[in-house]
This record gives sequence, structure tokens and C-alpha cells, in this order.
Amino acid sequence: MITLYGSPLSGNTHKIRMALAFLGLPWDERLTDAAARQSDAFRALTPMTQIPLYVESDFTLRDSQAILAYLAARHRPGEWDGDSPEERGQVALWLSHAANEIANGPATLRLARKFGLAIFEDHAAAVTARILPVIEAHLEGRDWLAGDRLTIADMAASPYLALMGDAGLDLDDWPAIRDWTRRIAALPLFPEMPGWASEGAA
Amino acid sequence: MITLYGSPLSGNTHKIRMALAFLGLPWDERLTDAAARQSDAFRALTPMTQIPLYVESDFTLRDSQAILAYLAARHRPGEWDGDSPEERGQVALWLSHAANEIANGPATLRLARKFGLAIFEDHAAAVTARILPVIEAHLEGRDWLAGDRLTIADMAASPYLALMGDAGLDLDDWPAIRDWTRRIAALPLFPEMPGWASEGAA
Repeated sequence: MITLYGSPLSGNTHKIRMALAFLGLPWDERLTDAAARQSDAFRALTPMTQIPLYVESDFTLRDSQAILAYLAARHRPGEWDGDSPEERGQVALWLSHAANEIANGPATLRLARKFGLAIFEDHAAAVTARILPVIEAHLEGRDWLAGDRLTIADMAASPYLALMGDAGLDLDDWPAIRDWTRRIAALPLFPEMPGWASEGAA
Repeated sequence: MITLYGSPLSGNTHKIRMALAFLGLPWDERLTDAAARQSDAFRALTPMTQIPLYVESDFTLRDSQAILAYLAARHRPGEWDGDSPEERGQVALWLSHAANEIANGPATLRLARKFGLAIFEDHAAAVTARILPVIEAHLEGRDWLAGDRLTIADMAASPYLALMGDAGLDLDDWPAIRDWTRRIAALPLFPEMPGWASEGAA
């Protein structure tokens, strides 16, 4: 049995919900809000006290990119994490961007705008301004971030870009990113996420 | 032929130097300083204009974690990037920490202290204070970050921790991290890096 500690509006949690839904795996999602994350019980499970946290039998793993890498290696090796060394490198590149620039840029701006958290505003804005044009240019003329199909690169990078409206940004300013997030949302078994529009949406 | 765009004091470049040296592969290192990184020629090679940049025949890859993932998949699959799905997840976790907390914490503090760059000081200090105790606790009683041997997790995470003295931090405050960085520096073929002490050092 898989237990996923997360919260409904967490984009990082949604990365894992997407992977589990696409895999057709059942999971038990345990609501872990800010107060629960500071509890001693949760700290004993994960020293960073962050969600998502993935538990399967006696295996525990934190960090959304790491959980995606585990699920790919376990259930879709090659297809989801790169079927050549070159593709493995490309997938890893987008996991880095998801862990760094996307997390510290648009995801952090969303924490302030949607949830009222205190952030280092100028830092988050600078990171956002730096990464969005790079992603937009990369997605012009291609359907997926790495290779010719959905990989964990797309699952790791897409939530906080699809939800950039929550961060005070306009997805229509970035049409290649917008079309790609809608392409992902139109995939069979995609789990709904408030604020994430699918391809057919107006 | 492998071309590595980098600079001698770049910890990110050193991650790749370590991997190539351990693999016994020859490479051509091209000094790419701040001015060279802003040139149109370099921007045409990599939109983030960051080092290291790895070029091998017609394959180009940016991001030190991604380059390590490529080298592991190409030359040491399993051994360097995890020989089970669980280990793949653990290695990916430390690539995330290297791309995010270590880069935005101690590595960024070093940019200010050693090179005089303007940084978001409070942000870098907060990230550093959050990640160092987690790494120290993880390394207490173990020799390597993931699994029972050197992996790309160690190569990705170690340089900016070994060099924390350049960032105004004291490695002796973190004995498990210190001993691990010296363990790595004592490995056969380890390439020297100014400021990185080996196990035998006083």
C-alpha cells in the first residue's frame, strides 16, 4: 500500500498524484497541512518536514523529483526516465529545473499570492524572469520536455507552470508553456487540479 | 572528444571534473569566465549561460546534475546512479538537494564571500541553516549519501560543502560532512580543487 502525505492544492504533491494516476496505482492520501508538518511525528518521518512524502511498506522517500525518479525506475524504466544515456541526462536536466528554478520562482510566488506566506519576493521574481523564457523557447515546436513522449520531466516541471495564474503571472504570455500544460491535462487518467485548464478549455 | 566549458574555481564544474577523472576519460576544458558566458557564442550553446556545459560530438548538455546523470547512465549504470528503484530515488533526492538547497545556500554564500557577487544574502543564509543539519544527520554513521559506495549523489553534493570555508562557514562545525568530503578527496584519481582538504590533511 502506498501512502502519500500531501495536500490538495500542493503542486509538488500533484506531481506524484499524476504519476500514480497514470500508472493506475491506488494510494492513500493523508492530508498534511502546515501544522501537521511541524509535528514531531511528521519530523520523525522526514527531516525536511516537507510534502509530498511517499511511504510504501518500509520505504520512505521525500522530494517530489526523487519520488518521480523512483516510480519511473520501478514501473516505467526507459519510457519515463530516458531510454538512452542522452535522454537520461535531458530528463535529469528538467528535474533540476523543477527542483531549483521552478520551485524558487513561480512556485514561491504562488506561496505568497495564494497562501499569504512571507517569501524573498525579489529573489523569486528574478528566478522566474530568468527561467520562463528558457522553458518557452524549449517548448516551441515540441510536445514534451525530453524525448518524444511524456516523461517524469513533464510531471516534475508542469504543475507550478500550469498554476502560474495563482502566482500573479499570465499563462497566455507563454503560449508554448500553456499548450504543453493543457496537453498534459488532456491525457487519459490525468487527475484534476484546481486552476489547471485542459486543452479543450476556453 | 569531450569539451567541458567551466572555470577552475567553479564547484559545479568540479563535479564533472571528478566524474571524468574517476572514469579515466580525457577532456578538453575551456575556460569560460563571466565575460565569456555573456557572449553571443556561448548563449547560442546554452540559454542559461551557465557553466559547466558539456559537449561530446553533437550532444550538448547543461546543468551539473544532468551531466552527472548522463555520465552515470553511459559509463556506470547502476553503480553510480542506483542499482534498484529505491536507490535511484535516493540518488535523485541528493541531486535535488544539490540543485536547490546546496546551490542556493552554501554555494551562493561562497559567490558573495569569495567572488564579491551581489546575492540575496538573507535567502542564502536561511537555506544554508535549513539544509546543513539535515545533511550532517544523514551522514552520521554512513560513508556515502546513497547506497554503500560512491555515487553521483556524492559528486553532486560534495563540492560546495567541502568548500564551505570559502562561504564563511566552518567545516569543523559539521564533522560528518567534513569526514565525508575528505573521504571523497582521498579516492584514487580525485582531481585537486583549491580549498578542498583530503583525509590525511591536518
